[in-house]
Amino acid sequence: MKTNVAIIGIGLIGGSLGQALRGSGKYRVLGIARKRRTLRTAKRLGAIDEGSTRLQDASRADIIVIATPVDDVVPTARKLFPVLRPGTLVTDVASVKGPILESISRLIQNRPIHFVGGHPLAGSHQTGVKAANLNLFRGSTCVLIPLRKAPLNALAALWRAAGARVRIMSAASHDAAVAVTSHLPHVLAYGLVLSVAGHRDRKMLTALLAGSFRDVTRVASSDPEQWKQIFQSNARPIRRALAGYKKVLARLEKRLGQPSLRADLKKSQTFRHLLFHGK
Amino acid sequence: MKTNVAIIGIGLIGGSLGQALRGSGKYRVLGIARKRRTLRTAKRLGAIDEGSTRLQDASRADIIVIATPVDDVVPTARKLFPVLRPGTLVTDVASVKGPILESISRLIQNRPIHFVGGHPLAGSHQTGVKAANLNLFRGSTCVLIPLRKAPLNALAALWRAAGARVRIMSAASHDAAVAVTSHLPHVLAYGLVLSVAGHRDRKMLTALLAGSFRDVTRVASSDPEQWKQIFQSNARPIRRALAGYKKVLARLEKRLGQPSLRADLKKSQTFRHLLFHGK
Repeated sequence: MKTNVAIIGIGLIGGSLGQALRGSGKYRVLGIARKRRTLRTAKRLGAIDEGSTRLQDASRADIIVIATPVDDVVPTARKLFPVLRPGTLVTDVASVKGPILESISRLIQNRPIHFVGGHPLAGSHQTGVKAANLNLFRGSTCVLIPLRKAPLNALAALWRAAGARVRIMSAASHDAAVAVTSHLPHVLAYGLVLSVAGHRDRKMLTALLAGSFRDVTRVASSDPEQWKQIFQSNARPIRRALAGYKKVLARLEKRLGQPSLRADLKKSQTFRHLLFHGK
Repeated sequence: MKTNVAIIGIGLIGGSLGQALRGSGKYRVLGIARKRRTLRTAKRLGAIDEGSTRLQDASRADIIVIATPVDDVVPTARKLFPVLRPGTLVTDVASVKGPILESISRLIQNRPIHFVGGHPLAGSHQTGVKAANLNLFRGSTCVLIPLRKAPLNALAALWRAAGARVRIMSAASHDAAVAVTSHLPHVLAYGLVLSVAGHRDRKMLTALLAGSFRDVTRVASSDPEQWKQIFQSNARPIRRALAGYKKVLARLEKRLGQPSLRADLKKSQTFRHLLFHGK
């Protein structure tokens, strides 16, 4: 028998998860969205079995995935929790975990609901269900953070069915790590574009754009609203990451004209290889 | 009749140029390299018609392209100029132009040699003739900077034959622009990797690496020796670019926790689109 999953918010992540879960043959997916048009598109793209615009319909599912933007997770949970059956497992997909888990913990109080924070580390600078991709999570990591010893197995199985590797950690470790591995790169990219935005000769800049500029700034095409929410929610860990980054930058700047710079660049090249290709 | 071109230094750029020029059917390419093995590989890959390890053999050519690393351009020119026929056209491909053109100007003195600084804005984090690619310059820009009114037409035709658009500008404008469009992105990328190099849990970092980190740091895989030379040669314009960048970063950092951040991110997203896709 298939497990019933409700996905609330059918954008890039919700839609891709729906496609992957349905593709595994083990899940039946109910999609919840504000707009009927989103549900029609999701159905056409194979992301959901059925759709509803009524949040309370999610209560029929065994597992509920809140796949809304960061700022909507807690408000959605607030409306949702009172209508849920005891024992329902709820999770989310937001890129920041500490503040959300704190709020959820207060919301749950003594309700017999299980909540596990989730963050699939996959994405794109595109958004919306039209960008959904059956293989988005294949080979990626999904972080799970159980609240108050909530049972994990069913949710770990769900993410594995979608192709992800599951990793369990604390909210604090997660938020500090993604500040460096995801949020800081976005800050740097947005910043690099802004630093040339006042240039007097845009056509000349365009002619001289190198592949490096294109790569480094690609994620500056990401959705401003989504990233404003992420930056706001994780401001403190990002500031810590930025402090470390600025020290490194000052050191590189000092050495720009010196032969000793080669050792820094070599170290960077080597460590990047280690990160992406192991030893 | 084909134009005789000598390319000194058969790496990624020299090899790709050789392939493209031979492919156009209008050029005969003599490759000059230190190692016979490089010449054999270059011949096998169709990058040269014939090869030599003797620099003075370049004097047979109508156009000489010095395609060595940045630091070797001036020493190569110093050895080369005394053996050249009057009227020979010499160019280079280095990513920094001001310091090289100053030195070359002193070397030429009253010799009847024409020098035009060149910088094809194409490349890869890979190096060496094995990475050569017939289409490397297709659709890219090649900057040309004539020294003392050197004639440009033959060289512009050469780069067009290789698929590049030619753009003529001053050395100062070029160096300031590439400091922003190419060198600064490299500094930021090298720095981002270095800022996590001291992390206590590399495996955890690897598990949480996002696509953004991969993209932003891709060019940190570039050759350390090559980039040390570029950073050294263009240190002053890069420092200026960094000063502007640090101001933007400080502003973003201040606004990390504020809703007004959205406007900055939106501006960045929009300007990037303008840069890469025009209006």
